[in-house]
Amino acid sequence: MYNFDCVVIGSGIAGMTAAIYLKRFNLNVAILDYDAPGGLLNKINKIENYPGFLSITGPELAYKIYEQIQNLNIEIKYGKVLSITDHKIKTDIEEITANKIIIATGRQAKKINETALNISYCVTCDANFYKDRVVAIIGNNNSVNDVALLSDICKKVIFISNEKVNMKSISNVEILEDCQINKLNQEDNKIISVKTNYGDYEIDGLFVSLGYEPKVNFLDNIEKEKGYILVNENMQTNIDYIYACGDCIKKDIYQLTTATADATKAAINVKKALSKN
Amino acid sequence: MYNFDCVVIGSGIAGMTAAIYLKRFNLNVAILDYDAPGGLLNKINKIENYPGFLSITGPELAYKIYEQIQNLNIEIKYGKVLSITDHKIKTDIEEITANKIIIATGRQAKKINETALNISYCVTCDANFYKDRVVAIIGNNNSVNDVALLSDICKKVIFISNEKVNMKSISNVEILEDCQINKLNQEDNKIISVKTNYGDYEIDGLFVSLGYEPKVNFLDNIEKEKGYILVNENMQTNIDYIYACGDCIKKDIYQLTTATADATKAAINVKKALSKN
Repeated sequence: MYNFDCVVIGSGIAGMTAAIYLKRFNLNVAILDYDAPGGLLNKINKIENYPGFLSITGPELAYKIYEQIQNLNIEIKYGKVLSITDHKIKTDIEEITANKIIIATGRQAKKINETALNISYCVTCDANFYKDRVVAIIGNNNSVNDVALLSDICKKVIFISNEKVNMKSISNVEILEDCQINKLNQEDNKIISVKTNYGDYEIDGLFVSLGYEPKVNFLDNIEKEKGYILVNENMQTNIDYIYACGDCIKKDIYQLTTATADATKAAINVKKALSKN
Repeated sequence: MYNFDCVVIGSGIAGMTAAIYLKRFNLNVAILDYDAPGGLLNKINKIENYPGFLSITGPELAYKIYEQIQNLNIEIKYGKVLSITDHKIKTDIEEITANKIIIATGRQAKKINETALNISYCVTCDANFYKDRVVAIIGNNNSVNDVALLSDICKKVIFISNEKVNMKSISNVEILEDCQINKLNQEDNKIISVKTNYGDYEIDGLFVSLGYEPKVNFLDNIEKEKGYILVNENMQTNIDYIYACGDCIKKDIYQLTTATADATKAAINVKKALSKN
């Protein structure tokens, strides 16, 4: 006898969608997360390509889906997953058993090996704190939108990339391509300057825009490709009782619409598998 | 030189989603349909499993997505498609050329070979017209929800199926299983009675609930399975410039979420293909 028919790990748009479908199938379901509902949605400033909303912020959309979760009385458990073995989910708080498990942990910004109060991994979230100040941003050719947004708000932007950058020039952006960072100098737990092969730059804040990586470190025994979970067309992993959906799986297109569809498929296939038990 | 980079045929949730993505890629796109925007959404009474809305009617959701279409100034052309050959779409009104075409025509209720004013193919739309009256419904085991809804509203429901029916008994529902219809008697363009191997039944209205079939009759040269268009993982058909998405394609799960994801994939792959041109 398990605690739950299905536990969904992660409360982003994929995890919440899977839970909505499962609960409406009258299954005993819980969502498990260590963070506020919404996942990466909470870092998105403006959404205009999700069908049903002319324009909505990520946190607003997250809250609307969270209302569906509350309305269905879906249980939310807090805890950080340490391991999953034999239907047992061990968190930093407790151990929970589940007949089926859906991984929907999404992905997070790639981090650098440095901590300081003025390092940010989300330009749309934090750019405004550096209005009329000087910032550096560590990124690549995928960071062009982040750089442009910073240039609108900050006095000066130092764009640091270890590759060649293909970007039109902006008057207050200095592009350092093929650039090596030798040192980040700190004072009072804040980065105050960046030492590079181009010279030293005094800065008020440092942004990091190096892309994303899936949040699936706790899953040693699941097949992955470049860190992303491999699933079949039923969203099932190589471990038969574990499914996965959303941004943590290996696929071509990472959009809100594809996350909700993955989640729908995972939930419907979990329901089918449980009906056979 | 084509009239459009891409024409999307069909203005249900899949077609509108594809058009939103394409237009936001700055492509020259049009939607082509012979009916009001929304497609099958307009026949759905209540939606509670689409992420972002606690509860919404189908027509309300259709209108919200249509507002996105209007806001992006996406061109809508009216016309019924007669044929597609060599990038040319021939409608009953005009001929339009397109570099790429996305078929998103959805599906419709299976029809019977009889027309009359009191035949309905949508219980959720029309049940209310027969409050406290006697109706028949032609269906199968997938019609159980339709029968239950009619029984809540009508005085009496005659459930006619040509197969064995597995359904709990309801006091005002008479189940005629393994039933053959011999004749539908009309008077003043209305069905007034049904003649079956069980006897004759006088009725005020006739509902048909025989499932759906894709609306793709105009496509002779496209590979299909049981009428549904076959696509690869990029939503591309066997004709390289024609893509398809939503309820008209062959797949396992037909939900709003999977329709929007199909549409997203079709649009992104059309964009990729056009960038290569």
